[in-house]
Amino acid sequence: MSEPVTQVRFAQEADGIPNAENWQFTHDPIPPPEEGEISVKMHFLSVDPAMKGWITNKRSYIRPVKIGEVMRGFGVAEVTASRSDYYQVGDFCTGFTGIQTHGTFNSRHLRKVDASLAPLSSLMGGLGMPGFTAYFGLLDVGQPQAGETVVVSSAAGAVGHIVCQIAKLKGCRVVAIAGGPEKCRYLSEDLGVDAVIDYRHEEIASALKKAAPNGIDVYFDGVGGDMLDAVLMQINRLARIVLCGAISQYENLIKPEGPGNYFQLIAQSGRMQGFTMRDYMHRIPEAFVDLLTWQNEGKIEFREHIINGIDQFPRAVEMIFQGENQGKLMLQLISEPEA
Amino acid sequence: MSEPVTQVRFAQEADGIPNAENWQFTHDPIPPPEEGEISVKMHFLSVDPAMKGWITNKRSYIRPVKIGEVMRGFGVAEVTASRSDYYQVGDFCTGFTGIQTHGTFNSRHLRKVDASLAPLSSLMGGLGMPGFTAYFGLLDVGQPQAGETVVVSSAAGAVGHIVCQIAKLKGCRVVAIAGGPEKCRYLSEDLGVDAVIDYRHEEIASALKKAAPNGIDVYFDGVGGDMLDAVLMQINRLARIVLCGAISQYENLIKPEGPGNYFQLIAQSGRMQGFTMRDYMHRIPEAFVDLLTWQNEGKIEFREHIINGIDQFPRAVEMIFQGENQGKLMLQLISEPEA
Repeated sequence: MSEPVTQVRFAQEADGIPNAENWQFTHDPIPPPEEGEISVKMHFLSVDPAMKGWITNKRSYIRPVKIGEVMRGFGVAEVTASRSDYYQVGDFCTGFTGIQTHGTFNSRHLRKVDASLAPLSSLMGGLGMPGFTAYFGLLDVGQPQAGETVVVSSAAGAVGHIVCQIAKLKGCRVVAIAGGPEKCRYLSEDLGVDAVIDYRHEEIASALKKAAPNGIDVYFDGVGGDMLDAVLMQINRLARIVLCGAISQYENLIKPEGPGNYFQLIAQSGRMQGFTMRDYMHRIPEAFVDLLTWQNEGKIEFREHIINGIDQFPRAVEMIFQGENQGKLMLQLISEPEA
Repeated sequence: MSEPVTQVRFAQEADGIPNAENWQFTHDPIPPPEEGEISVKMHFLSVDPAMKGWITNKRSYIRPVKIGEVMRGFGVAEVTASRSDYYQVGDFCTGFTGIQTHGTFNSRHLRKVDASLAPLSSLMGGLGMPGFTAYFGLLDVGQPQAGETVVVSSAAGAVGHIVCQIAKLKGCRVVAIAGGPEKCRYLSEDLGVDAVIDYRHEEIASALKKAAPNGIDVYFDGVGGDMLDAVLMQINRLARIVLCGAISQYENLIKPEGPGNYFQLIAQSGRMQGFTMRDYMHRIPEAFVDLLTWQNEGKIEFREHIINGIDQFPRAVEMIFQGENQGKLMLQLISEPEA
């Protein structure tokens, strides 16, 4: 256990997008495991929009991280020492590992994973929380029917690009909204969505009219604000608007205006429904099996944006709020094991 | 058929609350019925918030009334001449009769009613659209469970006072929001709701905290705006916000701000859902039977605000938007027949 240990701690509150000043790197040793515990080293750490919420002291679905604490984060780790009957050295596990290179945990705090099923990185993306969020948000909350029009904002993001693909699999017309030509090219050419809107270069209302000539049945909302208002004006009867957990963090950056056109929900008997993965933890296995099957059949792909080294964490957080990532953003700390 | 015929026509567009200038009274004769038609004389005409929407040229659930046309309105009428096998002179019927004293219609345009079941006026209120709106909006969209807290705004209105009573019947804690001491007294003393909030004299957020100490499970929204925002901050997990058809008309008076706190729907996995009676026309009989039964059992009362004479129509429309009515507002044109 002579490897250097690095932990990223929450150092001070962030007014807007967190930057280097909001984090502190420390190098305290990790205690050896006691009875029922395991020690692990991290391979991948997920970088998520939700992080802004976790460091904001406000009513939410999870308690905020306090100043001085190791930053909350989701990771994939390898067991390096075990005093748990359930884990052996070399096993892999996932869960809230924190933003650190190593850690010691109660074994029940993490979930064992089979590293032979798929690359470890996909456990942070398509076969992890972003994939499950896309799956349940679209299918369970949005309930799209074949032939319906599904609009997805933040469509090139960690969750959005999976939503687009599941909606296509279900026979929907998919309209993807993203910022910039490279993301739009990816969505159109690589994922084969039916229409793309570059919100940085197009007027949303008229672009939506063209891209969704039969109106909008499902909107997977990754951004809120003006875009949600524009969508509301073009919803069909019984439309469903899915408010995805991830975006709630933008509220902590810029207090968004409420959707002034929400009265359209009355005229069209529409519904706007929020969710977080907390509602679906017990149903993760069904999402995992479907997503893995679709991936193995080549029907879905998971786009990953991997950056090397825990020292890049502050920069990675900035990237996610600037929309600079292409797909699921994560830090890699140790190279993938040989297959 | 020598009775004088009066019709109220839409004369000019209204910027805010419609007043006398927006209406024109005409006295054209009504044609006699042709094959399949009936002629009727009106007993009651309903005065509704929806009327503002009907005279506003905007995307909605129903086509707007054009300038010069007889104003759309719901009424209860008595058949005075029939060339339909289905109707005899003296039968009663209800439907979109228009704001006029007499009319001739295709018999299928109106619905026959049994005048012996309940006072005719209740067909405009508790046993009519307001009652059905309360019934389906609360029970089907809101889905309250016994022990949950239900908050009702516009609680003394045509729909709201029925929502309060159904929620009490279902074993909920009911918090009623209304404007002014008389409405609050009625809700508290006559209807027995658990708490009342006078929004004209109390600060909503702190009053809600006191009145709903366990949080809010269902909100029957009759007003939108700041009140909706205050409610959102206190919703429980899996809360349901019912956007009632009637209020969509306020959008046409003052463009409301969107609910800036709608992100709470994410944190609490809540839902905000609109509806209009159009969704439930096929299920009216079940609402009618339940409401009539509850009324006969003394479990529910329908409050009616009756004004005499069609000439009072312009004033009645003003009253409804000033919140001056106590319960369901309607015009009476002919005295009730002897029971």
